Amino acid sequence: MAEKTVADEMFSEFQEHSVAEFFRKNRQMLGFYGKVRSLTTIVHEYITNSLDACEEAGILPDLKIELRPLEGEHVKVISEDNGPGIPKSHIGKALAMMLAGTKFHRHMQMRGQQGIGASGCTMFAQMTTGKPVHVKSGTGQKVVECDLSIDVQTNKPLLMNVVETDSAFHGLVVEAEFAEVKYDRSEYSPFEYLKRSALANPHAQITFIDPSEKLFFPRASDVIPKRPSEVQPHPLGITTNDLIDLAHHCPARKISSFFTSTFARFSSTKVSELRSVVPDIDLEKVPRELKWAEAEAIVKAFQQMKWVAPATDSLQPIGEDQIEKAFKNILGPEFFSVRSRKPKVFRGGVPFVVEAAVAYGGKSGRSTANGTASDIQRFANRAPLLFDAGGCAITEAIKTIDWKRYDIDSFESTPLSVFVNFVSVYVPYTGAGKQAISPEEEVVSEIRFAIMEVARDLQRYLSGKVRESDREAKKKAIMRYVHQLSLNLPELAGAGKSSDIEESLIKLIQSKYAKSLNLEAEEEEKEEENAEKKSNGNGEEEKEE
Amino acid sequence: MAEKTVADEMFSEFQEHSVAEFFRKNRQMLGFYGKVRSLTTIVHEYITNSLDACEEAGILPDLKIELRPLEGEHVKVISEDNGPGIPKSHIGKALAMMLAGTKFHRHMQMRGQQGIGASGCTMFAQMTTGKPVHVKSGTGQKVVECDLSIDVQTNKPLLMNVVETDSAFHGLVVEAEFAEVKYDRSEYSPFEYLKRSALANPHAQITFIDPSEKLFFPRASDVIPKRPSEVQPHPLGITTNDLIDLAHHCPARKISSFFTSTFARFSSTKVSELRSVVPDIDLEKVPRELKWAEAEAIVKAFQQMKWVAPATDSLQPIGEDQIEKAFKNILGPEFFSVRSRKPKVFRGGVPFVVEAAVAYGGKSGRSTANGTASDIQRFANRAPLLFDAGGCAITEAIKTIDWKRYDIDSFESTPLSVFVNFVSVYVPYTGAGKQAISPEEEVVSEIRFAIMEVARDLQRYLSGKVRESDREAKKKAIMRYVHQLSLNLPELAGAGKSSDIEESLIKLIQSKYAKSLNLEAEEEEKEEENAEKKSNGNGEEEKEE
Repeated sequence: MAEKTVADEMFSEFQEHSVAEFFRKNRQMLGFYGKVRSLTTIVHEYITNSLDACEEAGILPDLKIELRPLEGEHVKVISEDNGPGIPKSHIGKALAMMLAGTKFHRHMQMRGQQGIGASGCTMFAQMTTGKPVHVKSGTGQKVVECDLSIDVQTNKPLLMNVVETDSAFHGLVVEAEFAEVKYDRSEYSPFEYLKRSALANPHAQITFIDPSEKLFFPRASDVIPKRPSEVQPHPLGITTNDLIDLAHHCPARKISSFFTSTFARFSSTKVSELRSVVPDIDLEKVPRELKWAEAEAIVKAFQQMKWVAPATDSLQPIGEDQIEKAFKNILGPEFFSVRSRKPKVFRGGVPFVVEAAVAYGGKSGRSTANGTASDIQRFANRAPLLFDAGGCAITEAIKTIDWKRYDIDSFESTPLSVFVNFVSVYVPYTGAGKQAISPEEEVVSEIRFAIMEVARDLQRYLSGKVRESDREAKKKAIMRYVHQLSLNLPELAGAGKSSDIEESLIKLIQSKYAKSLNLEAEEEEKEEENAEKKSNGNGEEEKEE
Repeated sequence: MAEKTVADEMFSEFQEHSVAEFFRKNRQMLGFYGKVRSLTTIVHEYITNSLDACEEAGILPDLKIELRPLEGEHVKVISEDNGPGIPKSHIGKALAMMLAGTKFHRHMQMRGQQGIGASGCTMFAQMTTGKPVHVKSGTGQKVVECDLSIDVQTNKPLLMNVVETDSAFHGLVVEAEFAEVKYDRSEYSPFEYLKRSALANPHAQITFIDPSEKLFFPRASDVIPKRPSEVQPHPLGITTNDLIDLAHHCPARKISSFFTSTFARFSSTKVSELRSVVPDIDLEKVPRELKWAEAEAIVKAFQQMKWVAPATDSLQPIGEDQIEKAFKNILGPEFFSVRSRKPKVFRGGVPFVVEAAVAYGGKSGRSTANGTASDIQRFANRAPLLFDAGGCAITEAIKTIDWKRYDIDSFESTPLSVFVNFVSVYVPYTGAGKQAISPEEEVVSEIRFAIMEVARDLQRYLSGKVRESDREAKKKAIMRYVHQLSLNLPELAGAGKSSDIEESLIKLIQSKYAKSLNLEAEEEEKEEENAEKKSNGNGEEEKEE
């Protein structure tokens, strides 16, 4: 036998760890740090799960969150919804196992996507109070009640005291006790979170019982949002790695039929086109024989081909009307403008929609010690983002805007509320705590354009108040001299009829003053066009194929 | 059989996922987004692993990073060190399995801590080029070469082409090919990263071969840093959950001996003291019978008891001399000041040290289009933090400082380099990409004080240049009138001897001008004292027990 080396000794400490253990040790990555933030994270996880479940089941959500202070600074959180419930077989894994869920692998627009959130709460309850979480789940036929905890070492759920009864109740009630949390009404509090959730989810009715009072956010609309649907991946959104993965797990007998059955926008015409771009690759062999180099060449070919943009019917923006209704209700602004933009694509093929709004005056903005300040309201798939503003695509986009151009002298100290909702099947969060959108170039640029559009409306309004009257005065002043000037000019220049000159002078002045207002808007549109030309050069018209 | 409920249907899509799959889908959480940032992340992971391994093995590090451009915008990264190598049995898990490693569970100061980094690189290579990583590992007796990839679905390593030979070579060579990366020399580039690594690791020698030239960062010091040692947890750093965990896995026969054997600073005197605080808890029973309520009461009792601060010999600050040497070498500043502060504690019992420095003039600061700007250099356990500055404790601390107080009119546009190194057994990173320190209160406050100390030195220097001469002039001007005033005053007031009055006037003026300089420093010291009083009220003197 060889002697023990230094490496052998060092690696005698080698261990494998469960993902639950990783997040227990790095709880701040899930948003569990700071007593107020931790409590908001808990409320966020339960509310987004409830909203997702109701939406998928086509139910108008009726949600209740109660925060009940207990001895020793503990807080009991009770979350209740009228959703479809969780079947008995899945309760444990859905609420007490990390990286398990119905959403991770599906191309679907959801608030949650990772299968960590609710299980993270179960773990945090257990970490801080040693207590399991009590769950009541009704699916419309049976009600199951149980106590749940998570075996951190193995990331497996532990169910205790399971009781099953017949009942028509459907919904989910979770009762969990936490320590290391604190309730207040700051801008990072559960209160603020729920207020913003109500704003972005006008179809939801939310009851909030906090330690001092009972609040009710009524439903502003009875329209159930369309059920989110799964979408096929778009050829432009695919990496070589994805293509290999999909091909190797596809039951199709030929690569060509794998393409048409797996991808969106992949007609047989497109297969022929692809064949002509990569003539050396045999598209008739079985998909599992696709090699990396071939897949790489195919992905490159995709980039050169023109494609119909990805379908966007799976995306569920809130809608301009709904946003306007909610804002006018809550802020009563002097001026309001909103835009739901056309769907765009990032990373080549992930469709997304940006909705932006700006409210000015009334209760817009945020009260601070030094008066009213501007307020940025960030959302991803209708879920409010309260934390980590620094690294977020929305903040980055707002930073790049020259507000002076829109007659806002100091963005920080103007009573403005800027609203942005990022809608996508896949939200590139910067962390597992899901509080900021990764500032990818296409995303930042599209958010920027959306805000510029509403800012332009705001500027028109502000200049309509101030600058237009100013311009009108100047115009009149000049006009007063036109007649005299037209009389003198022929004399000076020694040619032409004074009445002709007067006429053209008037035309000149009028057109100058009409144009200048639209000049800036034109500049911006040009910038936007250039950005679009840069991004992939794609954009075949949609047509029946 | 009951009918299928909505919930049954929805949960038919339920799946479990591996942590590798999670990070493949959320690669931005590991720092793999943006082509430049991705490449820097790769270099960061390899370099920190090499430095950690060399330190633990007591070897002066000799590191080489080569970036070799390949066809189709691929880049081959070759990382080579002279460390202890990895034994054959562990190569796969160390480099191609997430959450596996030697560091996660140990209380030890390391750059890495999670067992994700290097495996993340293996996955990123595979995701972008489909190619395994080639590894050569020598432990001083055997050299193993192999190709490595990661089975993403199961998070298990796959080894191929394993060849083992006898050889005295020790070290690790990793060759990996990536796409979706880009090399430049921006402030976020591998070049900048290595420059800063060299600064904070003066004992390391780094060769960097980039696409255009070969660079060499020579070793500035031959002193091998002390080997990091494991530390026992401190009673103040423990949560109820930790206590239960430790107790239930401890072989000790009594709770009392479990305390003295497991924790730092836990003498038998302390056991008696604890017994008197929680008289109802039986400290003689076996540790695995410790109940949650008891553990909670014990943790509370710990908070009330006085403890000797945690041992800090496990912490490895760079040291004032070494930092000064490195800075003077690289920036040649007009003025330089550095402080390695006394160890402090956060979350009750995690010891940490903050080192701060400020360099002014010379090549300090950062060149921008508009001239020189201030530059913030952030480090955690000597590893540079280039990204996510927004949410980092260091940035937060710097933001709270009123630079005008230190005669810096505009922090942004002054040729200043501010350096902060956060040293701890546990760094609370905000994300798995390890680029920002979570802004926990005690941490931000200590960083703030460290920077204020060096800023005060800077202010003395600046005021020594400007303000002192100013003050001297004023003092002289006043002095000129003293004699005349002392003659006139008795007349006006009708009492006393003019020579006595003159004397006390002179004293008054002199003491006023001596004091005012120290006034601000005193104010700051008071603020600091208050902060310390607030934090736990602990701090028993260390003594033999």
